[in-house]
Amino acid sequence: MTQQMSLSCPLPITSTDRILLGHGSGGKMTAELLARCFLPAFRNEYLDRLDDGAVLDVGGARLAFTTDSYVVTPLFFPGGDIGELAVNGTVNDLAAAGATPLYLSAAFILEEGFALSELERITASMRKAAEAAGVLLVTGDTKVVDRGKADGCFINTTGIGLVEHTRLISADRARPGDVVVLSGSIAEHGMAIMAARAELELETPVESDTTALHRMVLDVLATGADVHCLRDPTRGGVATALNEIAHRSAVGIVLDETAIPVTEPVRGVCELLGLDPLYVANEGNMLTIVPRTDAEQVLTAMRRHPESSQARVIGEVVEDPARLVVLKTTVGGRRIVDMLQGEQLPRIC
Amino acid sequence: MTQQMSLSCPLPITSTDRILLGHGSGGKMTAELLARCFLPAFRNEYLDRLDDGAVLDVGGARLAFTTDSYVVTPLFFPGGDIGELAVNGTVNDLAAAGATPLYLSAAFILEEGFALSELERITASMRKAAEAAGVLLVTGDTKVVDRGKADGCFINTTGIGLVEHTRLISADRARPGDVVVLSGSIAEHGMAIMAARAELELETPVESDTTALHRMVLDVLATGADVHCLRDPTRGGVATALNEIAHRSAVGIVLDETAIPVTEPVRGVCELLGLDPLYVANEGNMLTIVPRTDAEQVLTAMRRHPESSQARVIGEVVEDPARLVVLKTTVGGRRIVDMLQGEQLPRIC
Repeated sequence: MTQQMSLSCPLPITSTDRILLGHGSGGKMTAELLARCFLPAFRNEYLDRLDDGAVLDVGGARLAFTTDSYVVTPLFFPGGDIGELAVNGTVNDLAAAGATPLYLSAAFILEEGFALSELERITASMRKAAEAAGVLLVTGDTKVVDRGKADGCFINTTGIGLVEHTRLISADRARPGDVVVLSGSIAEHGMAIMAARAELELETPVESDTTALHRMVLDVLATGADVHCLRDPTRGGVATALNEIAHRSAVGIVLDETAIPVTEPVRGVCELLGLDPLYVANEGNMLTIVPRTDAEQVLTAMRRHPESSQARVIGEVVEDPARLVVLKTTVGGRRIVDMLQGEQLPRIC
Repeated sequence: MTQQMSLSCPLPITSTDRILLGHGSGGKMTAELLARCFLPAFRNEYLDRLDDGAVLDVGGARLAFTTDSYVVTPLFFPGGDIGELAVNGTVNDLAAAGATPLYLSAAFILEEGFALSELERITASMRKAAEAAGVLLVTGDTKVVDRGKADGCFINTTGIGLVEHTRLISADRARPGDVVVLSGSIAEHGMAIMAARAELELETPVESDTTALHRMVLDVLATGADVHCLRDPTRGGVATALNEIAHRSAVGIVLDETAIPVTEPVRGVCELLGLDPLYVANEGNMLTIVPRTDAEQVLTAMRRHPESSQARVIGEVVEDPARLVVLKTTVGGRRIVDMLQGEQLPRIC
């Protein structure tokens, strides 16, 4: 497993020679596809860091650069839609580099027959999200594919942000003695999508947590806290994001289940559908790893923002067992929390 | 028509309320979709220029930023494949801003069941094209959609380039007295795709002209020539690109049909399929508009590069009739060359 996770060996790990839904899960199969196909082809110092975006020196400026395609289904869901997601998701990947998001591109792949009224709802929603986040959408592209050759509307957004701090924030920087800070309650985005797909009638509806987190992150950095890692736990959830960090940093991470906030409605839907909230996607949540001594100032800065008013420490970084995430359960046991295997929730973002 | 083309009025021009293939043609319907949907939603000084990319000031650096999704079918065609196209196409959009291309992102939308061997061919081809162009692919994304919800493989690339000149190069800068320089023979990419789709057995095969043009463009700029417009005539071909310039600059453009190079095999396939090469996509061709006095030095610089050894002046910019492109035909007549109407060659790039 270490070998797989180091992502340095282009071994054909999967037994399949075809793309499976699991290759898009953000979990172990995605990592395998990266290791087998993309990293050997494109290998360079930026890509090899496996962070959510690259930090580049361009003409004297330090930039963050990140891309995501959005293929969520349904396109409209409780708490948001694909347009809002496409803006906030890329803004948050820039935030995870500690950058100030500035400019986005937007590229649409539309299926013949897609309703213009839906496209207009989506672009209105993107404008609103971009205004709220303070970013400009400055360049774009539209392609149309024949009926039956896409699924309504796919959107790619790619973002440029300005990195004004001089820290190195990366998944390989977690150290024993650090703590894991989570900015809010988990699994809301994924369960909103799943509840919509299953057409569940819930007493308390579950809504996506999609929101832009960069102002909160910039305030955290402004405290001077020695932030080691930032990651927004989207596909594959908190479990997968922390596994990536544990492997890249060669450390262990011990989580305290009682500290991890899950709202009652989310817990209910998870139980109904048999899903572990630790693996469910978030779109308005940030994992921050800092030395324990800096935790209090980080929490104070986070709690000033409504989107992270419930921020808390959910675990700690330890030396052993390296490359493992372990959960101390509510009933006092310990279990290993592996990366997401295969596919749990396809097309969640 | 002026109203439509100024792209400033969000009128519902088309009679349809659904996306049609023609909305992705790069021609008039694409312009209408921009005017109706995207520009009113995202309106800002960068997007409103309607150039192939945006030029931005970021942290003291002047950057070009451009995005394109590639949905070409078939994925592999004579002279190239979707991977090579995805690198060269975005590199050329950076070149059209006079930028030195530096970094690309790559985002893949894969259909469940797509062969890994094909994906590996595509990524190998991207690597080769990126190496040849001197750009690094620094960040990426992979999504997988269920079988039947995409068409094998779609790729988005978004590029960052450094703009080291201080010129304003834009579609609204053409002036009477300028000439139109074309870097090579036209319609090769589009006809290679169409011949592959129609499974034509040609005596002399037609191959895509996909190649990176930035070194040639940078050499042209280095001559000190007062370059007013640069545009690579992809979707909608030379006719559509020049119509955009004529409208944005409020000038007329008169083309000399005898000066426009079309190879015999391309002319043959065009005649066979009933297509006008002026409307067919190019992927290794650049239109450059400069004052007549600078034409000779531009041609000399271009002809030093194999990809533009056949560069020539194909027309001139005139005051009247404004906003029209007129072709002086080989038989001595004159005809108006309008923008591409509707859809001619879907999914050509």
